[in-house]
Amino acid sequence: MMARDETGPRLALSGAQGHIRRIPLENISTLARGAFGDPSIIPLWFGEGDLQAPAFIGEALMQAIREGHVFYSHQNGIPLLREALAEYLTGLNRLPVTSDRITVTQSGMNSIMLAVMMIAASGDNIVVIDPVWPNMAGMAQLVDAEVRSVRMDHGPNGWNLDLEKLAAAIDGRTRGVFFASPGNPTGAMLPIETQVAMLELCRSRGVWLIADEVYNRLAFGRRNAESILDHADPEDRLFVINSFSKSWAMTGWRLGWLVHPPSLGATLAMQVQYTTSGVTTFLQHAGVAAIRHGEPFVASMRAYCEQGMDIVCDALESFGRVRLGPRPMAGMYAFFEVDGMPNSREACLEILDKTRVGLAPGYFFGPGSDTFLRLCVCRAPEVLREAMGRLRGALV
Amino acid sequence: MMARDETGPRLALSGAQGHIRRIPLENISTLARGAFGDPSIIPLWFGEGDLQAPAFIGEALMQAIREGHVFYSHQNGIPLLREALAEYLTGLNRLPVTSDRITVTQSGMNSIMLAVMMIAASGDNIVVIDPVWPNMAGMAQLVDAEVRSVRMDHGPNGWNLDLEKLAAAIDGRTRGVFFASPGNPTGAMLPIETQVAMLELCRSRGVWLIADEVYNRLAFGRRNAESILDHADPEDRLFVINSFSKSWAMTGWRLGWLVHPPSLGATLAMQVQYTTSGVTTFLQHAGVAAIRHGEPFVASMRAYCEQGMDIVCDALESFGRVRLGPRPMAGMYAFFEVDGMPNSREACLEILDKTRVGLAPGYFFGPGSDTFLRLCVCRAPEVLREAMGRLRGALV
Repeated sequence: MMARDETGPRLALSGAQGHIRRIPLENISTLARGAFGDPSIIPLWFGEGDLQAPAFIGEALMQAIREGHVFYSHQNGIPLLREALAEYLTGLNRLPVTSDRITVTQSGMNSIMLAVMMIAASGDNIVVIDPVWPNMAGMAQLVDAEVRSVRMDHGPNGWNLDLEKLAAAIDGRTRGVFFASPGNPTGAMLPIETQVAMLELCRSRGVWLIADEVYNRLAFGRRNAESILDHADPEDRLFVINSFSKSWAMTGWRLGWLVHPPSLGATLAMQVQYTTSGVTTFLQHAGVAAIRHGEPFVASMRAYCEQGMDIVCDALESFGRVRLGPRPMAGMYAFFEVDGMPNSREACLEILDKTRVGLAPGYFFGPGSDTFLRLCVCRAPEVLREAMGRLRGALV
Repeated sequence: MMARDETGPRLALSGAQGHIRRIPLENISTLARGAFGDPSIIPLWFGEGDLQAPAFIGEALMQAIREGHVFYSHQNGIPLLREALAEYLTGLNRLPVTSDRITVTQSGMNSIMLAVMMIAASGDNIVVIDPVWPNMAGMAQLVDAEVRSVRMDHGPNGWNLDLEKLAAAIDGRTRGVFFASPGNPTGAMLPIETQVAMLELCRSRGVWLIADEVYNRLAFGRRNAESILDHADPEDRLFVINSFSKSWAMTGWRLGWLVHPPSLGATLAMQVQYTTSGVTTFLQHAGVAAIRHGEPFVASMRAYCEQGMDIVCDALESFGRVRLGPRPMAGMYAFFEVDGMPNSREACLEILDKTRVGLAPGYFFGPGSDTFLRLCVCRAPEVLREAMGRLRGALV
C-alpha cells in the first residue's frame, strides 16, 4: 500500500512543478494562523473591516435562492449583473462602459487570475508597481512569469511613480504592468495624468496595463477616484480589476468583476469555464442589489474608513518613533515606518507578542518595503483607540 | 483616444497568449446560447438536473450569514467543513481520510484547476481517458499542456479501458492521467482492479493520477461507487476530485473539494490565495449541512436518475436507428449513436431544430466520439417522456 518511490514522505510535493514548489508559503494568513479568532488580539493585519454588508444584500441572495436561481449560469456572468455593472460604471465615470466589457468573477483576485492567465506564461515578465498587495506577484508566480518590481518613491509629498523607472523596466518579454490606485497598502492615488502616461507607454510597447481599482470608492471627500477607463479605448490592452469586497463589505462573499476589451469576452468565457465554471448564481443576484441600492452603504463605508484613518494617524503622528508621511487620502490602511524596527516580520511578531495588535509586515508588499508596517483602519473607533493605546507602549 | 497599434479591432485579443487564443470557443454553453431559457426547448444538454437542493441547505446558508460568517476565511476551507468531509469520506469508504488531505474548492472544476496548475506546464502532457467531459482538457490547454487521448473501447459489454494503450501513451513529459468513474458521458464504472492497476502504473512512471469521483454517489443500486482512495497511500501522487453539484443538486452554488496528499496542503493554500482567495464563507457552512444531513436527499437523487435512465433507455432501445449498448449503471447520462448521423454537431443542431430537445454532441467528449450524442436523464419523468416522444420522430 506504500508509494513506490524514493523521495519519502514528501513524495507527492516533489511531483509538483518547480515554480510551484518555490512559492513562499508565508503570507498574512500563515503568519496569523495561530491567532485566527483569538479574542485577545485586535486583528488589523488583513484588508478587511469589521462591518458587515447591509442586510438587504443578504435578503436579495435569499430571495434569489427562493426564486430558483440555483442552476448553472452564463460564464461571463448573468446578464442582469453585467448590465447593472455597466450602468454603474457609466454613471460613475465620464465615458460609458458597455456590458460586453464586463465579466463577473469570483473576486478581484480571480479577475487578476484570469488576466494573468490570458497574457503571461513562463519566460514572460510582469512589472508590478509597489508597494502593493502581494497577490498579483503570487499569481504571476503560478504561471512561472517573472515579477519585476518598480518601487514608487516615498518623499515628503507621499508616494510617487517615476515613469522613467517604469519605462526602463519594460523589455521584450514584458506582458503587463500592474498598479493599484488608490493603493494598498499606501492609500496613494496615482494622478490621472500619470495613469494616462502609463497607458500611453503600454500602448507604445504593446504591453497590457492592469489597473486595480478595488479601492476606487474609498477616496476620502469624493464619490470616487478617477478611473483610467475614462482615458482608454475599449480595445486597449487594459484590464480593470474590481470587487465587492471592500466598498460593500463583502470580503467573505467572493464576488468581483473584470473590465476587459469586448473582443476578449468569448475567450474569457472559456477561461471561466475551465477554472471555476462561473460564479454562484444567486450570489450574482445579491451583487445586482448591492450595485442598485448600495450607494448609501458605500458612502458610510468611506466615512467609516476616513474616521478610522483620522484616529489612527492622530495617534501615529504622536508616536515619536513613527514616520508616516502625508496622511493617506483613500483606502483602508496606514503604512508607516518605526525607528529601530528595520525588519518588518520581526517587528510584527514583537508587536503582536507585546500588544496583541496584529499588523502586516512591509516585506509582503514588495522589495524595499521591509521597514514598513501596514495597519487596517476599517474598524470601530473604540477598537482603533484601544489598539492605538496598546501600540503606544511599543512604538513611542 | 484610439489605440495606437496596427492590428485594428482585434488589437486586444492579439495580445493574449497564443495557446489561449487557440482554445476552441465552442462548448455546450455557446452551442446552446441562443436557446438558454427558451421554454419551448427541453434542455437535456447540460450536466444538470431539474431538482433543487433541499431547503435545509439554503436555510443553513442563511443562518450562516445571520451568524456573521461573512468574512475572509481559511484558504484550504473552514475547519468545520474539512472535518465534515473527512468524516464523510471515512464513513463512505474503507480507509480513513484525514482533514489535512482535503481542500475545499469553488467546484469540482476548480479542484481540477488547482491540480493541473500544481503539476503541469507548457511542454508537459496529460493523458485523458475518454470519452469524458471536456473540461479537464480545457484546463490543460490553459496551461499549454498537451492533451493525449486514450479512448476506452466500446463493445457489447460497454466501455473498457485497455491498460496497454494507457501505458503506451505515457512518456517522459506525461505529468498526469485523468479519468472519471462513474463516467460522464458514459456512465461506465471502471472496475476497481483497473483503477488500482492505473495507480500502480502511475506510481511506476512517477505520474499523477487524477480521479474524478463527482458521480460516485449516483451508482444505481448501491450507496456509492468504490473509490481509489481505498487503495492509495496518503502521499501517493493522487488527486481525487469531487463536488456538491450533482449528488446534492447544487450546480449553481459552486462548491467542491479536492482530496490531496497532506504534504501539498500549504502549497494548495497559496494556490487558492492567488486564484480565488478562497470559497464563500457562508456557503461552506451550507456544505457542512449538506454533508451532515443530506444522505436522504442523495438517495432520492440516485433514485431519480435511475428512474430517468429507465425511461430514456426504454425509449432509446425502441428506436430502430439508435445504438446504445448496455444501459449505464450510474450517472446522469445516456450516450448513444444514431445510424445515419455521423456528425454529432450537425445531429444536435438538426435534432434541436426538429424536436426542440437539446442534446450534447459527442465530439465534445474526445476524439472518436463524434458519432455519439449525450442526453441528461436527471429530469422529471413527464419531461423525459415528452422529450423521448419528440425524439422518436427524429431518431426512429
